[in-house]
Amino acid sequence: MRSTVSFYVCFLLSLCLGLACVVCVCVWNSHWRGGFAWDGSSLQFNWHPVLMVTGLVVLYGNGAVLYRVPLTWGQNKLPWKLLHATLMFLALILAIVGLCAVFDFHNAKGIANLYSLHSWIGIAATALFAFQWVVGMAGFLLPYSPESFRKLLKPIHVWMGAGIMTLSIAACISGINEKLFFVLTKDQPYTKLGPEAVLGNLLGVLIVAFGLVVLKMLSDHRWQRPDSRPEDIDYTPVLQEENE
Amino acid sequence: MRSTVSFYVCFLLSLCLGLACVVCVCVWNSHWRGGFAWDGSSLQFNWHPVLMVTGLVVLYGNGAVLYRVPLTWGQNKLPWKLLHATLMFLALILAIVGLCAVFDFHNAKGIANLYSLHSWIGIAATALFAFQWVVGMAGFLLPYSPESFRKLLKPIHVWMGAGIMTLSIAACISGINEKLFFVLTKDQPYTKLGPEAVLGNLLGVLIVAFGLVVLKMLSDHRWQRPDSRPEDIDYTPVLQEENE
Repeated sequence: MRSTVSFYVCFLLSLCLGLACVVCVCVWNSHWRGGFAWDGSSLQFNWHPVLMVTGLVVLYGNGAVLYRVPLTWGQNKLPWKLLHATLMFLALILAIVGLCAVFDFHNAKGIANLYSLHSWIGIAATALFAFQWVVGMAGFLLPYSPESFRKLLKPIHVWMGAGIMTLSIAACISGINEKLFFVLTKDQPYTKLGPEAVLGNLLGVLIVAFGLVVLKMLSDHRWQRPDSRPEDIDYTPVLQEENE
Repeated sequence: MRSTVSFYVCFLLSLCLGLACVVCVCVWNSHWRGGFAWDGSSLQFNWHPVLMVTGLVVLYGNGAVLYRVPLTWGQNKLPWKLLHATLMFLALILAIVGLCAVFDFHNAKGIANLYSLHSWIGIAATALFAFQWVVGMAGFLLPYSPESFRKLLKPIHVWMGAGIMTLSIAACISGINEKLFFVLTKDQPYTKLGPEAVLGNLLGVLIVAFGLVVLKMLSDHRWQRPDSRPEDIDYTPVLQEENE
Protein backbone atom coordinates (compact mmCIF):
# COMPACT_ATOMS: atom_id res chain seq x y z
CA MET A 1 0.00 0.00 0.00
CA ARG A 2 2.80 2.40 1.03
CA SER A 3 4.65 1.34 -2.12
CA THR A 4 1.59 2.23 -4.26
CA VAL A 5 1.29 5.67 -2.64
CA SER A 6 4.99 6.38 -3.20
CA PHE A 7 4.63 5.26 -6.84
CA TYR A 8 1.78 7.70 -7.43
CA VAL A 9 3.79 10.49 -5.77
CA CYS A 10 6.63 9.77 -8.26
CA PHE A 11 4.17 9.46 -11.17
CA LEU A 12 2.49 12.79 -10.32
CA LEU A 13 5.93 14.38 -9.94
CA SER A 14 7.00 13.08 -13.37
CA LEU A 15 3.82 14.51 -14.94
CA CYS A 16 4.37 17.92 -13.30
CA LEU A 17 8.10 18.00 -14.15
CA GLY A 18 7.36 16.88 -17.74
CA LEU A 19 4.76 19.64 -18.15
CA ALA A 20 7.20 22.17 -16.66
CA CYS A 21 9.89 21.05 -19.19
CA VAL A 22 7.50 21.54 -22.14
CA VAL A 23 6.31 24.95 -20.90
CA CYS A 24 9.89 26.05 -20.24
CA VAL A 25 11.28 25.01 -23.66
CA CYS A 26 8.28 26.60 -25.45
CA VAL A 27 8.57 29.90 -23.54
CA TRP A 28 12.34 29.99 -24.14
CA ASN A 29 12.01 29.50 -27.90
CA SER A 30 8.87 31.57 -28.49
CA HIS A 31 9.61 34.52 -26.19
CA TRP A 32 13.43 34.67 -26.08
CA ARG A 33 14.44 33.07 -29.39
CA GLY A 34 11.83 34.78 -31.62
CA GLY A 35 9.25 32.02 -32.22
CA PHE A 36 8.84 29.39 -34.91
CA ALA A 37 8.88 29.01 -38.73
CA TRP A 38 9.86 26.35 -41.29
CA ASP A 39 11.92 28.49 -43.68
CA GLY A 40 15.57 27.53 -43.07
CA SER A 41 16.03 30.49 -40.69
CA SER A 42 16.95 30.34 -37.00
CA LEU A 43 13.20 30.29 -36.33
CA GLN A 44 13.19 26.82 -37.91
CA PHE A 45 16.01 25.76 -35.60
CA ASN A 46 13.74 26.70 -32.65
CA TRP A 47 11.56 23.67 -33.38
CA HIS A 48 14.59 21.45 -32.61
CA PRO A 49 14.79 21.92 -28.80
CA VAL A 50 10.99 22.03 -28.45
CA LEU A 51 10.44 18.76 -30.35
CA MET A 52 13.41 16.90 -28.87
CA VAL A 53 12.49 17.80 -25.27
CA THR A 54 8.78 17.06 -25.85
CA GLY A 55 9.36 13.84 -27.82
CA LEU A 56 12.63 12.27 -26.74
CA VAL A 57 12.34 13.23 -23.06
CA VAL A 58 8.81 13.99 -21.82
CA LEU A 59 6.57 11.82 -24.03
CA TYR A 60 9.22 9.07 -24.08
CA GLY A 61 9.60 9.09 -20.29
CA ASN A 62 5.86 9.02 -19.63
CA GLY A 63 5.36 6.27 -22.23
CA ALA A 64 8.16 4.22 -20.65
CA VAL A 65 6.58 4.08 -17.16
CA LEU A 66 3.07 3.23 -18.34
CA TYR A 67 3.27 -0.44 -17.25
CA ARG A 68 4.36 0.63 -13.78
CA VAL A 69 0.96 2.23 -12.99
CA PRO A 70 -0.58 -0.23 -10.45
CA LEU A 71 -4.10 0.69 -11.63
CA THR A 72 -3.39 -1.19 -14.89
CA TRP A 73 -2.12 -4.43 -13.29
CA GLY A 74 -5.52 -6.05 -12.80
CA GLN A 75 -6.41 -5.44 -16.42
CA ASN A 76 -5.55 -7.17 -19.68
CA LYS A 77 -2.11 -5.98 -20.75
CA LEU A 78 -2.91 -5.69 -24.46
CA PRO A 79 -4.57 -2.22 -24.53
CA TRP A 80 -1.69 -0.88 -22.42
CA LYS A 81 0.81 -2.45 -24.83
CA LEU A 82 -0.92 -0.68 -27.71
CA LEU A 83 -0.98 2.63 -25.80
CA HIS A 84 2.75 2.19 -24.93
CA ALA A 85 3.60 1.50 -28.61
CA THR A 86 1.46 4.46 -29.77
CA LEU A 87 2.95 6.95 -27.29
CA MET A 88 6.45 5.78 -28.21
CA PHE A 89 5.62 6.09 -31.93
CA LEU A 90 4.42 9.69 -31.40
CA ALA A 91 7.57 10.43 -29.36
CA LEU A 92 9.72 9.00 -32.19
CA ILE A 93 7.91 11.07 -34.84
CA LEU A 94 8.40 14.26 -32.80
CA ALA A 95 12.11 13.44 -32.38
CA ILE A 96 12.55 12.75 -36.13
CA VAL A 97 10.78 16.02 -37.09
CA GLY A 98 12.99 17.75 -34.49
CA LEU A 99 16.08 16.34 -36.25
CA CYS A 100 14.72 17.39 -39.67
CA ALA A 101 14.35 20.96 -38.32
CA VAL A 102 18.04 21.21 -37.43
CA PHE A 103 19.34 19.39 -40.56
CA ASP A 104 17.24 21.70 -42.79
CA PHE A 105 18.46 24.77 -40.90
CA HIS A 106 22.12 23.66 -41.16
CA ASN A 107 21.78 22.86 -44.87
CA ALA A 108 20.11 26.23 -45.59
CA LYS A 109 22.93 28.08 -43.76
CA GLY A 110 25.78 25.89 -45.10
CA ILE A 111 26.64 24.63 -41.58
CA ALA A 112 28.10 21.11 -41.26
CA ASN A 113 25.93 18.37 -39.76
CA LEU A 114 26.81 15.81 -37.10
CA TYR A 115 30.23 17.02 -36.04
CA SER A 116 29.66 17.92 -32.34
CA LEU A 117 29.57 15.48 -29.42
CA HIS A 118 26.03 16.76 -28.73
CA SER A 119 24.95 15.67 -32.21
CA TRP A 120 26.65 12.28 -31.90
CA ILE A 121 24.89 11.54 -28.60
CA GLY A 122 21.55 12.89 -29.87
CA ILE A 123 21.60 10.93 -33.13
CA ALA A 124 22.64 7.78 -31.23
CA ALA A 125 19.68 8.26 -28.84
CA THR A 126 17.21 8.67 -31.72
CA ALA A 127 18.65 5.77 -33.77
CA LEU A 128 18.58 3.45 -30.74
CA PHE A 129 15.02 4.60 -30.01
CA ALA A 130 13.91 3.78 -33.58
CA PHE A 131 15.67 0.38 -33.37
CA GLN A 132 14.10 -0.29 -29.96
CA TRP A 133 10.63 0.58 -31.30
CA VAL A 134 10.93 -1.72 -34.32
CA VAL A 135 12.35 -4.64 -32.29
CA GLY A 136 9.74 -4.08 -29.55
CA MET A 137 6.95 -4.07 -32.15
CA ALA A 138 8.26 -7.24 -33.80
CA GLY A 139 8.91 -9.02 -30.51
CA PHE A 140 5.92 -8.05 -28.39
CA LEU A 141 3.10 -7.12 -30.77
CA LEU A 142 3.46 -8.94 -34.09
CA PRO A 143 2.45 -12.61 -34.45
CA TYR A 144 4.71 -15.66 -34.54
CA SER A 145 7.34 -14.18 -32.27
CA PRO A 146 8.48 -17.17 -30.15
CA GLU A 147 7.91 -16.89 -26.41
CA SER A 148 11.56 -17.72 -25.70
CA PHE A 149 12.58 -14.69 -27.81
CA ARG A 150 10.10 -12.44 -25.98
CA LYS A 151 11.37 -13.58 -22.57
CA LEU A 152 14.95 -12.93 -23.65
CA LEU A 153 14.02 -9.56 -25.16
CA LYS A 154 12.09 -8.12 -22.19
CA PRO A 155 15.01 -7.29 -19.80
CA ILE A 156 17.09 -6.00 -22.75
CA HIS A 157 14.12 -3.83 -23.84
CA VAL A 158 13.76 -2.38 -20.31
CA TRP A 159 17.51 -1.74 -19.96
CA MET A 160 17.78 -0.17 -23.43
CA GLY A 161 14.74 1.96 -22.58
CA ALA A 162 16.53 3.38 -19.52
CA GLY A 163 19.76 3.73 -21.54
CA ILE A 164 18.01 5.76 -24.26
CA MET A 165 16.56 8.02 -21.53
CA THR A 166 20.10 8.57 -20.16
CA LEU A 167 21.41 9.40 -23.66
CA SER A 168 18.49 11.81 -24.20
CA ILE A 169 19.27 13.64 -20.96
CA ALA A 170 22.98 13.96 -21.89
CA ALA A 171 22.05 15.16 -25.41
CA CYS A 172 19.58 17.76 -24.06
CA ILE A 173 21.96 19.13 -21.40
CA SER A 174 24.85 19.46 -23.89
CA GLY A 175 22.50 20.99 -26.51
CA ILE A 176 21.01 23.62 -24.17
CA ASN A 177 24.49 24.46 -22.82
CA GLU A 178 25.87 24.82 -26.38
CA LYS A 179 22.91 26.96 -27.54
CA LEU A 180 23.21 29.33 -24.57
CA PHE A 181 26.95 29.80 -25.29
CA PHE A 182 26.13 30.48 -28.99
CA VAL A 183 23.38 33.06 -28.48
CA LEU A 184 24.27 34.77 -25.18
CA THR A 185 27.19 36.96 -26.23
CA LYS A 186 28.01 40.69 -26.45
CA ASP A 187 25.51 42.83 -24.44
CA GLN A 188 24.00 39.95 -22.53
CA PRO A 189 26.74 37.31 -22.11
CA TYR A 190 25.98 33.91 -20.58
CA THR A 191 28.39 34.75 -17.71
CA LYS A 192 26.02 37.50 -16.47
CA LEU A 193 23.25 34.92 -15.89
CA GLY A 194 20.49 37.13 -17.29
CA PRO A 195 16.83 35.98 -17.47
CA GLU A 196 17.32 33.86 -20.63
CA ALA A 197 20.40 32.14 -19.16
CA VAL A 198 18.50 31.33 -15.95
CA LEU A 199 15.50 30.03 -17.94
CA GLY A 200 17.77 27.81 -20.11
CA ASN A 201 19.64 26.47 -17.07
CA LEU A 202 16.31 25.89 -15.28
CA LEU A 203 15.10 23.88 -18.29
CA GLY A 204 18.22 21.71 -17.99
CA VAL A 205 17.66 21.17 -14.26
CA LEU A 206 13.99 20.25 -14.87
CA ILE A 207 15.00 17.73 -17.58
CA VAL A 208 17.50 16.08 -15.23
CA ALA A 209 14.94 15.98 -12.37
CA PHE A 210 12.30 14.48 -14.72
CA GLY A 211 14.81 11.89 -15.97
CA LEU A 212 15.83 10.85 -12.46
CA VAL A 213 12.20 10.35 -11.39
CA VAL A 214 11.48 8.28 -14.54
CA LEU A 215 14.63 6.17 -14.03
CA LYS A 216 13.56 5.61 -10.39
CA MET A 217 10.13 4.37 -11.56
CA LEU A 218 11.75 2.09 -14.16
CA SER A 219 14.34 0.58 -11.80
CA ASP A 220 12.29 -0.01 -8.63
CA HIS A 221 11.21 -3.66 -8.81
CA ARG A 222 8.32 -3.13 -6.36
CA TRP A 223 6.68 -1.18 -9.16
CA GLN A 224 7.12 -3.73 -11.94
CA ARG A 225 3.90 -5.18 -13.31
CA PRO A 226 3.66 -8.66 -11.71
CA ASP A 227 4.63 -11.58 -13.96
CA SER A 228 1.79 -12.85 -16.13
CA ARG A 229 -0.11 -15.93 -14.92
CA PRO A 230 -0.62 -18.87 -17.33
CA GLU A 231 -4.22 -17.80 -18.03
CA ASP A 232 -3.15 -14.26 -18.97
CA ILE A 233 -2.69 -13.27 -22.57
CA ASP A 234 0.06 -11.02 -21.36
CA TYR A 235 2.73 -12.34 -23.70
CA THR A 236 0.50 -13.22 -26.60
CA PRO A 237 1.23 -11.16 -29.71
CA VAL A 238 -1.77 -9.36 -31.25
CA LEU A 239 -2.58 -11.45 -34.28
CA GLN A 240 -1.79 -14.72 -32.52
CA GLU A 241 -4.34 -13.72 -29.91
CA GLU A 242 -6.93 -12.97 -32.58
CA ASN A 243 -6.48 -16.44 -34.05
CA GLU A 244 -7.06 -18.14 -30.73
CA MET B 1 25.57 -19.68 -13.77
CA ARG B 2 24.72 -17.92 -17.07
CA SER B 3 23.83 -14.84 -15.04
CA THR B 4 27.27 -14.92 -13.34
CA VAL B 5 29.07 -15.21 -16.69
CA SER B 6 27.10 -12.29 -18.14
CA PHE B 7 27.90 -10.23 -15.00
CA TYR B 8 31.62 -10.83 -15.43
CA VAL B 9 31.37 -9.91 -19.14
CA CYS B 10 29.77 -6.59 -18.09
CA PHE B 11 32.30 -6.10 -15.28
CA LEU B 12 35.26 -6.72 -17.61
CA LEU B 13 33.68 -4.38 -20.17
CA SER B 14 33.30 -1.66 -17.53
CA LEU B 15 36.96 -2.05 -16.52
CA CYS B 16 38.12 -1.83 -20.16
CA LEU B 17 35.83 1.13 -20.97
CA GLY B 18 36.88 2.90 -17.76
CA LEU B 19 40.56 2.43 -18.61
CA ALA B 20 39.90 3.67 -22.16
CA CYS B 21 38.19 6.80 -20.75
CA VAL B 22 41.16 7.61 -18.50
CA VAL B 23 43.70 7.02 -21.31
CA CYS B 24 41.63 9.12 -23.73
CA VAL B 25 41.16 12.11 -21.39
CA CYS B 26 44.88 12.03 -20.43
CA VAL B 27 46.07 11.86 -24.05
CA TRP B 28 43.67 14.66 -25.05
CA ASN B 29 44.89 17.01 -22.31
CA SER B 30 48.58 16.14 -22.38
CA HIS B 31 49.10 15.85 -26.13
CA TRP B 32 46.46 18.20 -27.61
CA ARG B 33 45.90 20.72 -24.79
CA GLY B 34 49.55 21.22 -23.80
CA GLY B 35 49.87 19.23 -20.59
CA PHE B 36 49.45 20.08 -16.91
CA ALA B 37 50.48 22.71 -14.36
CA TRP B 38 49.02 24.37 -11.22
CA ASP B 39 49.71 28.02 -12.04
CA GLY B 40 46.32 29.55 -12.97
CA SER B 41 47.01 29.03 -16.69
CA SER B 42 45.01 26.90 -19.13
CA LEU B 43 47.41 24.07 -18.20
CA GLN B 44 45.81 24.13 -14.75
CA PHE B 45 42.37 23.88 -16.34
CA ASN B 46 43.54 20.64 -18.01
CA TRP B 47 43.45 18.89 -14.64
CA HIS B 48 39.68 19.53 -14.54
CA PRO B 49 38.54 17.06 -17.26
CA VAL B 50 41.16 14.47 -16.25
CA LEU B 51 40.18 14.48 -12.55
CA MET B 52 36.42 14.68 -13.12
CA VAL B 53 36.41 11.79 -15.63
CA THR B 54 38.75 9.69 -13.49
CA GLY B 55 37.03 10.47 -10.16
CA LEU B 56 33.37 11.23 -10.80
CA VAL B 57 32.92 8.70 -13.62
CA VAL B 58 35.46 5.85 -13.71
CA LEU B 59 36.45 5.38 -10.02
CA TYR B 60 32.89 6.22 -8.92
CA GLY B 61 31.33 3.73 -11.36
CA ASN B 62 33.71 0.90 -10.43
CA GLY B 63 33.24 1.62 -6.72
CA ALA B 64 29.45 1.58 -7.15
CA VAL B 65 29.29 -1.94 -8.62
CA LEU B 66 31.64 -3.53 -6.08
CA TYR B 67 28.85 -5.34 -4.16
CA ARG B 68 27.57 -6.83 -7.40
CA VAL B 69 30.69 -9.01 -7.87
CA PRO B 70 29.39 -12.56 -7.10
CA LEU B 71 32.84 -13.61 -5.82
CA THR B 72 32.27 -11.39 -2.76
CA TRP B 73 28.83 -12.75 -1.83
CA GLY B 74 30.06 -15.72 0.20
CA GLN B 75 32.31 -13.47 2.26
CA ASN B 76 31.73 -11.12 5.18
CA LYS B 77 30.41 -7.85 3.79
CA LEU B 78 32.41 -5.58 6.09
CA PRO B 79 35.77 -5.50 4.21
CA TRP B 80 33.83 -4.82 0.99
CA LYS B 81 31.92 -1.99 2.70
CA LEU B 82 35.23 -0.46 3.77
CA LEU B 83 36.67 -0.85 0.26
CA HIS B 84 33.47 0.69 -1.24
CA ALA B 85 33.70 3.66 1.17
CA THR B 86 37.45 4.07 0.48
CA LEU B 87 37.10 3.98 -3.32
CA MET B 88 34.22 6.48 -3.12
CA PHE B 89 36.26 8.73 -0.83
CA LEU B 90 39.15 8.70 -3.33
CA ALA B 91 36.70 9.44 -6.16
CA LEU B 92 35.25 12.35 -4.17
CA ILE B 93 38.73 13.77 -3.43
CA LEU B 94 39.67 13.60 -7.14
CA ALA B 95 36.39 15.35 -8.06
CA ILE B 96 36.93 18.10 -5.45
CA VAL B 97 40.53 18.70 -6.62
CA GLY B 98 39.16 18.73 -10.20
CA LEU B 99 36.70 21.47 -9.18
CA CYS B 100 39.48 23.44 -7.41
CA ALA B 101 41.49 23.33 -10.67
CA VAL B 102 38.73 25.06 -12.65
CA PHE B 103 37.76 27.55 -9.89
CA ASP B 104 41.43 28.59 -9.48
CA PHE B 105 41.82 28.93 -13.26
CA HIS B 106 38.63 31.03 -13.55
CA ASN B 107 39.64 33.27 -10.63
CA ALA B 108 43.16 33.79 -12.05
CA LYS B 109 41.68 34.77 -15.44
CA GLY B 110 38.75 36.82 -14.05
CA ILE B 111 36.18 34.43 -15.56
CA ALA B 112 32.86 34.03 -13.71
CA ASN B 113 32.20 30.76 -11.89
CA LEU B 114 29.08 28.59 -11.94
CA TYR B 115 27.04 30.32 -14.64
CA SER B 116 26.75 27.57 -17.31
CA LEU B 117 24.31 24.66 -17.28
CA HIS B 118 27.36 22.36 -17.42
CA SER B 119 28.65 23.86 -14.16
CA TRP B 120 25.22 23.65 -12.48
CA ILE B 121 24.89 19.94 -13.32
CA GLY B 122 28.53 19.22 -12.42
CA ILE B 123 28.38 20.99 -9.05
CA ALA B 124 25.05 19.29 -8.27
CA ALA B 125 26.62 15.88 -9.06
CA THR B 126 29.61 16.56 -6.76
CA ALA B 127 27.48 18.03 -3.94
CA LEU B 128 25.06 15.09 -4.06
CA PHE B 129 28.05 12.71 -4.11
CA ALA B 130 29.54 14.35 -0.98
CA PHE B 131 26.11 14.24 0.73
CA GLN B 132 25.65 10.58 -0.30
CA TRP B 133 29.09 9.68 1.07
CA VAL B 134 28.46 11.33 4.45
CA VAL B 135 24.96 9.85 4.84
CA GLY B 136 26.23 6.42 3.68
CA MET B 137 29.08 6.58 6.19
CA ALA B 138 26.74 7.60 9.03
CA GLY B 139 24.05 5.08 8.10
CA PHE B 140 26.06 2.01 7.14
CA LEU B 141 29.43 2.27 8.89
CA LEU B 142 29.16 4.33 12.07
CA PRO B 143 27.71 2.83 15.28
CA TYR B 144 24.26 3.35 16.76
CA SER B 145 22.54 3.81 13.40
CA PRO B 146 19.16 2.06 13.90
CA GLU B 147 18.47 -0.92 11.64
CA SER B 148 15.13 0.60 10.54
CA PHE B 149 17.03 3.67 9.27
CA ARG B 150 19.57 1.49 7.42
CA LYS B 151 16.79 -0.52 5.75
CA LEU B 152 15.03 2.69 4.70
CA LEU B 153 18.30 4.22 3.51
CA LYS B 154 19.53 1.32 1.35
CA PRO B 155 17.19 1.67 -1.69
CA ILE B 156 17.53 5.49 -1.56
CA HIS B 157 21.35 5.11 -1.45
CA VAL B 158 21.28 2.77 -4.50
CA TRP B 159 18.92 5.06 -6.45
CA MET B 160 20.89 8.20 -5.59
CA GLY B 161 24.07 6.37 -6.60
CA ALA B 162 22.64 5.70 -10.08
CA GLY B 163 21.26 9.27 -10.21
CA ILE B 164 24.70 10.78 -9.44
CA MET B 165 26.19 8.60 -12.22
CA THR B 166 23.56 9.97 -14.65
CA LEU B 167 24.34 13.57 -13.58
CA SER B 168 28.09 12.89 -13.99
CA ILE B 169 27.56 11.61 -17.54
CA ALA B 170 25.46 14.67 -18.47
CA ALA B 171 28.06 17.00 -16.90
CA CYS B 172 30.96 15.31 -18.74
CA ILE B 173 29.21 15.29 -22.14
CA SER B 174 28.22 18.97 -21.87
CA GLY B 175 31.71 19.88 -20.60
CA ILE B 176 33.60 18.09 -23.39
CA ASN B 177 31.21 19.52 -26.00
CA GLU B 178 31.68 23.06 -24.59
CA LYS B 179 35.49 22.74 -24.40
CA LEU B 180 35.73 21.51 -28.02
CA PHE B 181 33.63 24.49 -29.20
CA PHE B 182 35.88 26.86 -27.18
CA VAL B 183 39.25 25.58 -28.42
CA LEU B 184 38.55 24.29 -31.94
CA THR B 185 38.20 27.53 -33.89
CA LYS B 186 40.01 29.36 -36.72
CA ASP B 187 42.42 27.01 -38.61
CA GLN B 188 41.05 23.79 -37.18
CA PRO B 189 37.34 24.38 -36.48
CA TYR B 190 35.24 21.76 -34.69
CA THR B 191 33.08 21.45 -37.83
CA LYS B 192 36.03 19.93 -39.76
CA LEU B 193 36.20 17.00 -37.29
CA GLY B 194 40.00 16.97 -37.11
CA PRO B 195 41.93 14.48 -34.92
CA GLU B 196 41.34 16.41 -31.66
CA ALA B 197 37.61 16.72 -32.34
CA VAL B 198 37.35 12.98 -33.05
CA LEU B 199 39.34 12.16 -29.88
CA GLY B 200 37.11 14.44 -27.76
CA ASN B 201 33.92 12.99 -29.25
CA LEU B 202 35.29 9.46 -28.78
CA LEU B 203 35.94 10.26 -25.10
CA GLY B 204 32.29 11.31 -24.79
CA VAL B 205 31.08 8.10 -26.45
CA LEU B 206 33.31 5.98 -24.16
CA ILE B 207 31.96 7.78 -21.06
CA VAL B 208 28.37 7.13 -22.15
CA ALA B 209 29.13 3.46 -22.91
CA PHE B 210 30.87 3.04 -19.52
CA GLY B 211 27.92 4.71 -17.76
CA LEU B 212 25.36 2.48 -19.47
CA VAL B 213 27.25 -0.70 -18.51
CA VAL B 214 27.55 0.49 -14.88
CA LEU B 215 23.83 1.43 -14.75
CA LYS B 216 23.02 -2.03 -16.17
CA MET B 217 25.05 -3.71 -13.40
CA LEU B 218 23.39 -1.54 -10.75
CA SER B 219 19.83 -2.10 -11.96
CA ASP B 220 19.82 -5.83 -12.76
CA HIS B 221 18.38 -7.49 -9.65
CA ARG B 222 19.91 -10.88 -10.50
CA TRP B 223 23.24 -9.27 -9.67
CA GLN B 224 22.29 -7.78 -6.32
CA ARG B 225 24.13 -9.23 -3.33
CA PRO B 226 21.59 -11.61 -1.72
CA ASP B 227 19.87 -10.29 1.42
CA SER B 228 21.79 -10.89 4.60
CA ARG B 229 20.84 -13.90 6.70
CA PRO B 230 20.18 -13.43 10.43
CA GLU B 231 23.60 -14.83 11.33
CA ASP B 232 25.38 -12.37 9.01
CA ILE B 233 26.88 -9.19 10.35
CA ASP B 234 25.96 -7.68 7.05
CA TYR B 235 24.06 -4.72 8.44
CA THR B 236 26.06 -4.26 11.61
CA PRO B 237 27.87 -0.93 11.74
CA VAL B 238 31.61 -1.10 12.41
CA LEU B 239 31.89 -0.08 16.03
CA GLN B 240 28.69 -1.82 17.03
CA GLU B 241 30.20 -5.01 15.67
CA GLU B 242 33.41 -4.44 17.59
CA ASN B 243 31.45 -4.05 20.83
CA GLU B 244 29.63 -7.33 20.35
